[in-house]
Amino acid sequence: MVTSGGDAPGMNAAIRAIVRLAAWNSLEVIGFERGWEGVIQNKFRKLDSRSVSGILHLGGTILRTSRCPEFKTRQGLEKAAGNLAEENLDGLVVIGGDGSIRGAHELSRLTDTKIVALPASIDNDVYGTDETIGFDTAVNTAISEINKIRDTAVSHERTFIVEVMGRRRGFLAVEVGLTAGAEVILIPEVKYEEDRVLEILRENAAKGKRSSIIVIAEGVGRTRSLAESIERKVGVEVRVSVLGYVQRGGSPTARSRYLACTFAEKAMLLLSEGKGGEVVGIRGGEIVSTSLEDSCKNVKKLDPRVLRLAEKLAI
Amino acid sequence: MVTSGGDAPGMNAAIRAIVRLAAWNSLEVIGFERGWEGVIQNKFRKLDSRSVSGILHLGGTILRTSRCPEFKTRQGLEKAAGNLAEENLDGLVVIGGDGSIRGAHELSRLTDTKIVALPASIDNDVYGTDETIGFDTAVNTAISEINKIRDTAVSHERTFIVEVMGRRRGFLAVEVGLTAGAEVILIPEVKYEEDRVLEILRENAAKGKRSSIIVIAEGVGRTRSLAESIERKVGVEVRVSVLGYVQRGGSPTARSRYLACTFAEKAMLLLSEGKGGEVVGIRGGEIVSTSLEDSCKNVKKLDPRVLRLAEKLAI
Amino acid sequence: MVTSGGDAPGMNAAIRAIVRLAAWNSLEVIGFERGWEGVIQNKFRKLDSRSVSGILHLGGTILRTSRCPEFKTRQGLEKAAGNLAEENLDGLVVIGGDGSIRGAHELSRLTDTKIVALPASIDNDVYGTDETIGFDTAVNTAISEINKIRDTAVSHERTFIVEVMGRRRGFLAVEVGLTAGAEVILIPEVKYEEDRVLEILRENAAKGKRSSIIVIAEGVGRTRSLAESIERKVGVEVRVSVLGYVQRGGSPTARSRYLACTFAEKAMLLLSEGKGGEVVGIRGGEIVSTSLEDSCKNVKKLDPRVLRLAEKLAI
Amino acid sequence: MVTSGGDAPGMNAAIRAIVRLAAWNSLEVIGFERGWEGVIQNKFRKLDSRSVSGILHLGGTILRTSRCPEFKTRQGLEKAAGNLAEENLDGLVVIGGDGSIRGAHELSRLTDTKIVALPASIDNDVYGTDETIGFDTAVNTAISEINKIRDTAVSHERTFIVEVMGRRRGFLAVEVGLTAGAEVILIPEVKYEEDRVLEILRENAAKGKRSSIIVIAEGVGRTRSLAESIERKVGVEVRVSVLGYVQRGGSPTARSRYLACTFAEKAMLLLSEGKGGEVVGIRGGEIVSTSLEDSCKNVKKLDPRVLRLAEKLAI
Repeated sequence: MVTSGGDAPGMNAAIRAIVRLAAWNSLEVIGFERGWEGVIQNKFRKLDSRSVSGILHLGGTILRTSRCPEFKTRQGLEKAAGNLAEENLDGLVVIGGDGSIRGAHELSRLTDTKIVALPASIDNDVYGTDETIGFDTAVNTAISEINKIRDTAVSHERTFIVEVMGRRRGFLAVEVGLTAGAEVILIPEVKYEEDRVLEILRENAAKGKRSSIIVIAEGVGRTRSLAESIERKVGVEVRVSVLGYVQRGGSPTARSRYLACTFAEKAMLLLSEGKGGEVVGIRGGEIVSTSLEDSCKNVKKLDPRVLRLAEKLAI
Repeated sequence: MVTSGGDAPGMNAAIRAIVRLAAWNSLEVIGFERGWEGVIQNKFRKLDSRSVSGILHLGGTILRTSRCPEFKTRQGLEKAAGNLAEENLDGLVVIGGDGSIRGAHELSRLTDTKIVALPASIDNDVYGTDETIGFDTAVNTAISEINKIRDTAVSHERTFIVEVMGRRRGFLAVEVGLTAGAEVILIPEVKYEEDRVLEILRENAAKGKRSSIIVIAEGVGRTRSLAESIERKVGVEVRVSVLGYVQRGGSPTARSRYLACTFAEKAMLLLSEGKGGEVVGIRGGEIVSTSLEDSCKNVKKLDPRVLRLAEKLAI
Repeated sequence: MVTSGGDAPGMNAAIRAIVRLAAWNSLEVIGFERGWEGVIQNKFRKLDSRSVSGILHLGGTILRTSRCPEFKTRQGLEKAAGNLAEENLDGLVVIGGDGSIRGAHELSRLTDTKIVALPASIDNDVYGTDETIGFDTAVNTAISEINKIRDTAVSHERTFIVEVMGRRRGFLAVEVGLTAGAEVILIPEVKYEEDRVLEILRENAAKGKRSSIIVIAEGVGRTRSLAESIERKVGVEVRVSVLGYVQRGGSPTARSRYLACTFAEKAMLLLSEGKGGEVVGIRGGEIVSTSLEDSCKNVKKLDPRVLRLAEKLAI
Repeated sequence: MVTSGGDAPGMNAAIRAIVRLAAWNSLEVIGFERGWEGVIQNKFRKLDSRSVSGILHLGGTILRTSRCPEFKTRQGLEKAAGNLAEENLDGLVVIGGDGSIRGAHELSRLTDTKIVALPASIDNDVYGTDETIGFDTAVNTAISEINKIRDTAVSHERTFIVEVMGRRRGFLAVEVGLTAGAEVILIPEVKYEEDRVLEILRENAAKGKRSSIIVIAEGVGRTRSLAESIERKVGVEVRVSVLGYVQRGGSPTARSRYLACTFAEKAMLLLSEGKGGEVVGIRGGEIVSTSLEDSCKNVKKLDPRVLRLAEKLAI
């Protein structure tokens, strides 16, 4: 097992589930440390049922993680594949986001060890699953932050631009925007039209709405310039809040834990059937899997319906 | 619109969504007060987009609610139907749980007003939807309570029996048990076998697990007797914690708000198409609807797979 | 060091502070396990700066705790004193509530080891300190629970009786009642007059207040009978919520951590000066100490002014 | 009554307390809207006991607030004084921070209306009180954010620089640093020595501490440059998190509510005795008052002992 890339709440729940399900099948589990770096350097520790006690509710990952440039080289991948062979592993469970799944795919070509990936990422940008482990937690964290920010927004009658994470995608921003009641939601998937935003804010002011929340995905990259434009052209006070790393941490929500547990169950089932090269996911409420290749080749679509609904509800 | 039965977090989010979506179609909305009582007594207030500002994140229901025995009589239903006719309503949106949906079904037989129900209940016991508005919030509240209880359980090396809500069903207990890492989960749908519980606790003690959490659904009805048996027969200290009404309240989670918004959208779509007699829901990730009749005649099944997974993970 | 009696949030913060301050003075620290039981059985572990990493924010106590009847016997005390001598301890830091401080006082008569106590209890019933470690956390937990309960109380127009902890004293109930805006606060220190409560509820109903929160300390012992009287004599719906063990757990608040750190500093100062037989505390904003004897002989007074203020504000 | 300057959690609790205590004395209360702007423009609303229902637990201020440059001019002050005379006010309660108290002091020279200020500010920088309304809430919010950030810090073995508010002072940073277990705390009151910080981080790395949290007050102004220096000179990964406006919002903690209630009680007592020109506060656990003049002329001292203790504990 390895956790890789950015950490996401629920990774520990997944680690616990893998280890304990393995114990039921009398399998031994080792956990590589610090992501792909640990696989390349063959640094790991044995994990048994007791060693994963009391971690279900913890954010982060007890195996730690890292960004590992070496793993993107042919040499790094071969070292990693060599270690998997040396340790004589039947299977490798990779827990991580989009980048980790690409890594898993590359590695799967060089090894006989069966690789199964569990998508864990606050960005929710993995093809093959409607939702990743950690996404629901990040959404809830963000709306609870926006709740606090709204206190100041309303009291000072200001407009707040709240930048949320999501890398190049807008999944997090859309879900946060809908459920926090944001007046405007800006995401990379939709053409950025500043004039439209200014128009909405002017209409809100005309309707007597004296404070607004704009949720913007980090991938849009216009946070500061938008703030300036609004102050200059609409004439209202604007403040920017970049939510930042708090979105990655915290105790996982029930849903992130549920996905971690059920994804782990599916992964162990696949491995027990000798199937590798798959990424687990939930689609239409069912726990399913997709080939690593398909997951890497395709781009997950964002449903524009939710975005439109969010804007309709924020009148 | 009317909110009825036990309150659930996200009812206000649903009220807001109905009112604002109605505004886009230039429809007028009235909200009956105090559940069916308000329909029978024709007590209501007009609701416009501004009157539902700032309620998205609030627990409870601004329309208030009640248990209404009169509505279970022929006379009460006829009074209610008469008022719907008098107010010349095109549609009635009912927000509530299992009992409210039965009421909506009874009423729908006596009126031409199209009735659509949104399932909102922390019990998740409505046939026709995988999940009700408010359920996810209650699960998260319960696991956060159990997290606190576990501090004491571990420090004192005690076993805690935590009783959660759910009326006659075990949906809440199973989801809470899985995601809180409960050592034992007891629900009405599974035959109660005290000896099995005692056996698990003895095994845990033998493995060195000095504290355990037992999650029991209120519908099982054995909380106190189980506590006594464990103390007497296993010889460990036991404490009981009845989570109670905190499970009904609190700010709705993102998922409860999401369901409220998308259910409301579906309800308004059904009404705009002239369709009534339906209860909205989510099944397999899709927003769908079921006839009130089917929802009332059928009993929602509980998936035993999750229960088994929970117990496997709690070793 | 030993943690004893009921656990309280901030005990771990105190353990960490004692261990790390000792490290600055090149002192070795051992932690007895499971309260006085560990002292009697001479079960302990060595604690260094690294072994208390990552515990500052955790509820409970990593040393675990217990109620220990044997420690109340002459024999138990002598065994404990013998072990302190055998281990050649310069000082013993006792972290616990009222009962633990009494135990520390008894033990101090039989040993040359200097004993200093840190008051840690959610009951706040220790003479010699305005506030105990953990009290602020319990108050905040309780008001956050009541916030959730109020959602249901308001939506259903019900009266809730919320029973809080506090053993035989009303400190927790008064602080919770004031800061949660309870309409009535009942504590053991004030004569119980049911008629007065009924009168207030009738007046509230007359004023149009349709839901009320009554905070009652467990020490009053009238929770159920009061509920029945209100339903029967005032004619409003009543629900009872016993907050229970969640009040003991959870991550300590900033204030509970602050007290833990500063109390620990004072304890180490006293021991470095060779002073024992003291319990640390905060009085008038100053970190001070009181003799164990004075703390045991005196009863902490509850300021009735806060109670009166709370009732004035709840009109 | 007027709330002015930056909002702070507990302002609403103070508004509620003032209004309800006034009701006991049959006094009428008006609330000026949007801070000093409302006083200058004579915009206000009447407040009675019912109009402050359900606000005790809300962040922000229902009276809203603003920064008001006009109030810093002679003309603005005279308009304000004129309005106080016109409305024939016996007293004016000002709820706000350092700047608002200066404003209150200026205004008090031009009017016969008795002015009493309640210090409410997350910065805690008001002379005459050990603690301001809202400070405890901001500290708790910040440590809960840092808890989340630590998940990522530990998982990625990174150093995080967390910038907290506090304007030109370090009260918030010190309290947050101590109670969140920050490895380094940087405040404006202590000379900034980058080399010392780098040294501590190097020592931590040598001891095997792979992640560190640096809490820096916004008033230090070196956040970015420090991040660069650490990355370049110590060779560890650094991330910056500016907590921002979430620190101002959220439901007030029990302590912030307690101060709001007891400060309000003192303010009403002073006004009933015909005393004005005072700012209420808590010193040595007692509710006291200081003249507006003294509060403006003096600078509140920061106790370096807590800072030293924090650093000792973070080894």
